[in-house]
Amino acid sequence: MAINILRFSHQGLTRWGVVRNGAITPVPGDFSTTADFIRANSVASLSALSGETIAEAAVKWLSPVTANQQFVCQGANYRQHMVESGMDPDAKTFNMIFTKAQSCICPADSDLVKPAHVRFLDYEIELGLVMKRDVTGKVAVTDADLPGFIAGLVIVNDYSARDIQIPQMQFYKGKSYRTFGPVGPYLCLLEPKDFSLLKRLDLKLTVNGQVRQQDSTANLVYGPAETLTELSGVQDLYTGDLIATGTPAGCALSIPSPAKQKIGALLPEAVKWRAFMKVQAGRPQYLKGGDVVEARIASADGTIDLGLQRNRVVEERA
Amino acid sequence: MAINILRFSHQGLTRWGVVRNGAITPVPGDFSTTADFIRANSVASLSALSGETIAEAAVKWLSPVTANQQFVCQGANYRQHMVESGMDPDAKTFNMIFTKAQSCICPADSDLVKPAHVRFLDYEIELGLVMKRDVTGKVAVTDADLPGFIAGLVIVNDYSARDIQIPQMQFYKGKSYRTFGPVGPYLCLLEPKDFSLLKRLDLKLTVNGQVRQQDSTANLVYGPAETLTELSGVQDLYTGDLIATGTPAGCALSIPSPAKQKIGALLPEAVKWRAFMKVQAGRPQYLKGGDVVEARIASADGTIDLGLQRNRVVEERA
Repeated sequence: MAINILRFSHQGLTRWGVVRNGAITPVPGDFSTTADFIRANSVASLSALSGETIAEAAVKWLSPVTANQQFVCQGANYRQHMVESGMDPDAKTFNMIFTKAQSCICPADSDLVKPAHVRFLDYEIELGLVMKRDVTGKVAVTDADLPGFIAGLVIVNDYSARDIQIPQMQFYKGKSYRTFGPVGPYLCLLEPKDFSLLKRLDLKLTVNGQVRQQDSTANLVYGPAETLTELSGVQDLYTGDLIATGTPAGCALSIPSPAKQKIGALLPEAVKWRAFMKVQAGRPQYLKGGDVVEARIASADGTIDLGLQRNRVVEERA
Repeated sequence: MAINILRFSHQGLTRWGVVRNGAITPVPGDFSTTADFIRANSVASLSALSGETIAEAAVKWLSPVTANQQFVCQGANYRQHMVESGMDPDAKTFNMIFTKAQSCICPADSDLVKPAHVRFLDYEIELGLVMKRDVTGKVAVTDADLPGFIAGLVIVNDYSARDIQIPQMQFYKGKSYRTFGPVGPYLCLLEPKDFSLLKRLDLKLTVNGQVRQQDSTANLVYGPAETLTELSGVQDLYTGDLIATGTPAGCALSIPSPAKQKIGALLPEAVKWRAFMKVQAGRPQYLKGGDVVEARIASADGTIDLGLQRNRVVEERA
């Protein structure tokens, strides 16, 4: 059965533990990276772990994906988010891949720092896959193979400065500011039989308690198996690396329809981007200081529950 | 004075050495990453190094930037390359940043593998900056500060599958295939007085002996100081990390003028990309099996000479 792992700081030490009903059973050993932890432990051995526990409330959460791991992302991977991003899902012919800087990885309860020059800060709840093994050559991965490739799941919020990301075309910078990548709280390690739930997980994100994003991984356009198959033919992936699978609809971002974009394309660049900024300025959904973003991913039956991610927005002083 | 460092394999060992007139003086010690090497050595100590030498021809080159280091890239950073990429340099208002997968880093004399499904494989000679120190917060960097931030320089070829990179919008995938990032041969470590040459380096790339790219770093749009200033406000950078500063004009890629793009934007996506592919198919400059790409970067006076990078194109079997 799936098991939740927390990386945490307690009494000055960084440790890993199994979380059950709010109590942490520390895992013996010292694992400096997610790769080290995954290589050294199995769901079976962790499930059998007993001994003294620490109250979860007494520790400081750390990201279960350490900042040495690669942070690869899929873009425009839910049908409705494609529509709101000005794309036509039926015209999609490729799996959009980009990265976020590893230094934006942070604990699941981190404050989200809104840089002073950023106007349009947006949220993106995503299911994160954590690699179980190294992949250093092209492989064909099927759904049945996934337990050999994916160790577990995490919640990722792919926070995005839309006024940087969209006009600058390459997503990397606008999505890489420090604190823009909370991960966790839990790394939910899976057993083979849990994989049937991978495409039936419910995602829900709220801002100040109001639901903004709500969807199911059933609506992913490119699933984990086909994504791993293609990525393996491009680059190496290593144990513990993180693949964020894209976000559903409901972001603050508003992009004109494909038809309106065609008209926009006729405008001079500066005029087009002024119009874009004006539309965003009319969207009260963008995050501001004091807002609280909460994100949950779980299966309906509760077998898989990745916990609650909670970020308070803090405005950086100019 | 600037000094050339080679990372190499010899008699089954991975070593680092100072190269002078085709002879390598090995550096004592074991440095598993570029960060380790830079932290443990200085230009002064390396310049004073003496002892037995190994003929350069007797060793196998390795990339002087190890594959654990970040590989951050600037896009559209020479005026003429912007024009040929369908952009207006005078309308440029941002420093385009993206990444390549670290696993594409390879030795400077590697074969370049053209994936079977890639039609339009292009070259991009670039000056690479190698970080001297960690940067974990926002700093204002001036030209005078650069010797504190940049340890040295390398040649990078940012090989690009244009039929993946351009239609898929995010550059990462089309630029990250294995062997798409040769680095070196030398890491040229600089002393403070060498930095006056940083904006006066000549870049030259040939294919089968024919000159395709030739420009000077004098024509960089965003220089190292302003790039480090901005990046430091986004993400952490670490000793040994690589920043590729963009490529000059002369690529095989042909993108319609901004005026023609406005017309193209009115077309359905599929029609637009068919037209794009047709234009590229008419460009004999794209690389094919057997082509040999050579890249050199040096100062006119020879004080800085990053060596000769040479890649033979090999077609992957379908």
